[in-house]
Amino acid sequence: MHSPTIQKIIALFSKFPTVGPRTAARFVFYLMKLSPEETEEILKSISELKKNVKTCSFCYNPFESKEENDLCSICSNPIRNKGLLCVIANETDLETIEKIKKYNGRYFILGGTVSALRKSDMEKLRIKELEERIKNHPEIQEIILAINPTSDGETTTLYLERLLKPLNKKITRLGRGLPVGAELEYADEETLRNALEGRK
Amino acid sequence: MHSPTIQKIIALFSKFPTVGPRTAARFVFYLMKLSPEETEEILKSISELKKNVKTCSFCYNPFESKEENDLCSICSNPIRNKGLLCVIANETDLETIEKIKKYNGRYFILGGTVSALRKSDMEKLRIKELEERIKNHPEIQEIILAINPTSDGETTTLYLERLLKPLNKKITRLGRGLPVGAELEYADEETLRNALEGRK
Amino acid sequence: MHSPTIQKIIALFSKFPTVGPRTAARFVFYLMKLSPEETEEILKSISELKKNVKTCSFCYNPFESKEENDLCSICSNPIRNKGLLCVIANETDLETIEKIKKYNGRYFILGGTVSALRKSDMEKLRIKELEERIKNHPEIQEIILAINPTSDGETTTLYLERLLKPLNKKITRLGRGLPVGAELEYADEETLRNALEGRK
Amino acid sequence: MHSPTIQKIIALFSKFPTVGPRTAARFVFYLMKLSPEETEEILKSISELKKNVKTCSFCYNPFESKEENDLCSICSNPIRNKGLLCVIANETDLETIEKIKKYNGRYFILGGTVSALRKSDMEKLRIKELEERIKNHPEIQEIILAINPTSDGETTTLYLERLLKPLNKKITRLGRGLPVGAELEYADEETLRNALEGRK
Repeated sequence: MHSPTIQKIIALFSKFPTVGPRTAARFVFYLMKLSPEETEEILKSISELKKNVKTCSFCYNPFESKEENDLCSICSNPIRNKGLLCVIANETDLETIEKIKKYNGRYFILGGTVSALRKSDMEKLRIKELEERIKNHPEIQEIILAINPTSDGETTTLYLERLLKPLNKKITRLGRGLPVGAELEYADEETLRNALEGRK
Repeated sequence: MHSPTIQKIIALFSKFPTVGPRTAARFVFYLMKLSPEETEEILKSISELKKNVKTCSFCYNPFESKEENDLCSICSNPIRNKGLLCVIANETDLETIEKIKKYNGRYFILGGTVSALRKSDMEKLRIKELEERIKNHPEIQEIILAINPTSDGETTTLYLERLLKPLNKKITRLGRGLPVGAELEYADEETLRNALEGRK
Repeated sequence: MHSPTIQKIIALFSKFPTVGPRTAARFVFYLMKLSPEETEEILKSISELKKNVKTCSFCYNPFESKEENDLCSICSNPIRNKGLLCVIANETDLETIEKIKKYNGRYFILGGTVSALRKSDMEKLRIKELEERIKNHPEIQEIILAINPTSDGETTTLYLERLLKPLNKKITRLGRGLPVGAELEYADEETLRNALEGRK
Repeated sequence: MHSPTIQKIIALFSKFPTVGPRTAARFVFYLMKLSPEETEEILKSISELKKNVKTCSFCYNPFESKEENDLCSICSNPIRNKGLLCVIANETDLETIEKIKKYNGRYFILGGTVSALRKSDMEKLRIKELEERIKNHPEIQEIILAINPTSDGETTTLYLERLLKPLNKKITRLGRGLPVGAELEYADEETLRNALEGRK
């Protein structure tokens, strides 16, 4: 029903995270109403993002720096504890953990999770890079696998635990149990079992 | 916490419909991962959208045409009933109504709804243009106010009804009543009253 | 896991409308905590309900009367319009419609809806009684089929329409269309079609 | 609108857990339709519940026994670990924990939680009885406070921790952390902090 130009941009926007064709169409109508200056600002911002923002050579977090710098502000911060490495699936998880202000080690962004141990899926993750980091950085003492306890996340965590075991570092997972506000009656059995075993 | 370039583009994306800062950040991380070619494709598509897609001079629907054409495919379709004008709030409503294949008149996209009859809000809508269309097109016999029966939509519909009354055309609203799948017990009183009065 | 007495009462409570085994168990724990006097009050109330409350001989609405009376307060009210008969599925629908204070005719409680025209299912409804009422009450001019526009409700309504047609009375349904607060974009196609056709 | 008998029983049913006036009315309509035999069965079952079912003299769990027995099947089970005491708010929590088959100690049903440390509220809970149990049963080595980590539950847990501290027993809470299926991004900060601190 839409014209080819609109159809094409709807297809492109539909690849954005959380965006479906209906929302993509709304983006198009929004863009249609913008002035040429406003549109230009968006185009320029996207270009600048790709030009100015680098990816940290240690943790893969996007960052911006005018200096010749390979490391993001977290990885280059001398106060952060270099003995801790928190492995996370995505960039948003880094923000989430930083916000609680309880972690002062470094991160490593894996780039996602896998639902099964298919080689093609595994290769999309930065697994080799993670192994390298740990081997090249003997100062790392504990690796925290801070991956979502979802089905995919558990598969990924289990794989990483086995893979990293021979490196002889302390490997931990985030604690499992009852979240704030939970009611025993509605908790799933696995969570309740974790809560009972992890009592303290 | 984000760098200035990222912050700026998050601010721009946050103005997109349905997008908040969290989703905007995900868009940024998505863009960061794209190849230069993929990014270029998005930039080019946005530019082409603004260049190729015109707004229909009758109904304000976006459309694309290689010819020198002012009217969208609906407004220029000789088979459509020129006696019917369906006034809708947004472009998406046009698609929604076209999809049910029951309406064969023309549309007029008002550009939104208002929550109160403040002059500043009213001026954002194409109210003058609507009046002009009706005055300049004596072939229009019925004006269907197909605006959401939400609080804002009702305010807007009521205002349009009063405004258009002197033009001596048939003015209708979409039928109110019980939607498919509704249960009397959970219907609000106003809807039930409409359903009882509109029985047939 | 529960003892036989508890299991039995859980089974009985689980047949109550909206109650599942988990809620039934909570009822049991609630009853366990009551004083003998409180328990006695519940038992007495249930007994009295069955003793004092009669079912209206016209509409099947439960009612209570110290006099020798066969009709509920609605059916015996001389001001109510005897020309209107509103056919509803359940007792709760009667309350729902009374609450909007727009209907002043009589009711007929069908006793449910059916999902298919199986004879065994149909016999659970008061279909013969409905036919009889209409035949024996020539003052009835309009029969309003106020059945939920759900799948089961539609099947039942359609069946009643065909069945009652030979009686040569005006037969109506509750109006279909957009409910208060609806948004076109999220309305189902059938509802939108009804709203467009029922515009006024 | 309802008759006095119906109104009274609606009021009584409305005190049942999870039941509001609308559901209570449905219960009444359900009862109205039952045969005298079915109604009698419900009345008899409630009477028998109050007659046959006792409350365990140790844990307050309802149980049924033909013998002269003061203890429920859990408390009188010689295989259960007498060193563990799991303090729970309600009877349903006992079932919930039994279902995961990981706990083999005894229980104590507190009878609820409190939202504030008001004396009048505290007296509704079996707090004195809990203290007595622990003092009179030196075999108890660990007291697990398995109370919901809701606002009320936390207030109650905190109060019990302080109260029981002088008794010099090991006092634990259920483990806090991420539940199965959780996503870091949507976890509340407190839960994430618990998950990070409780990593293992």
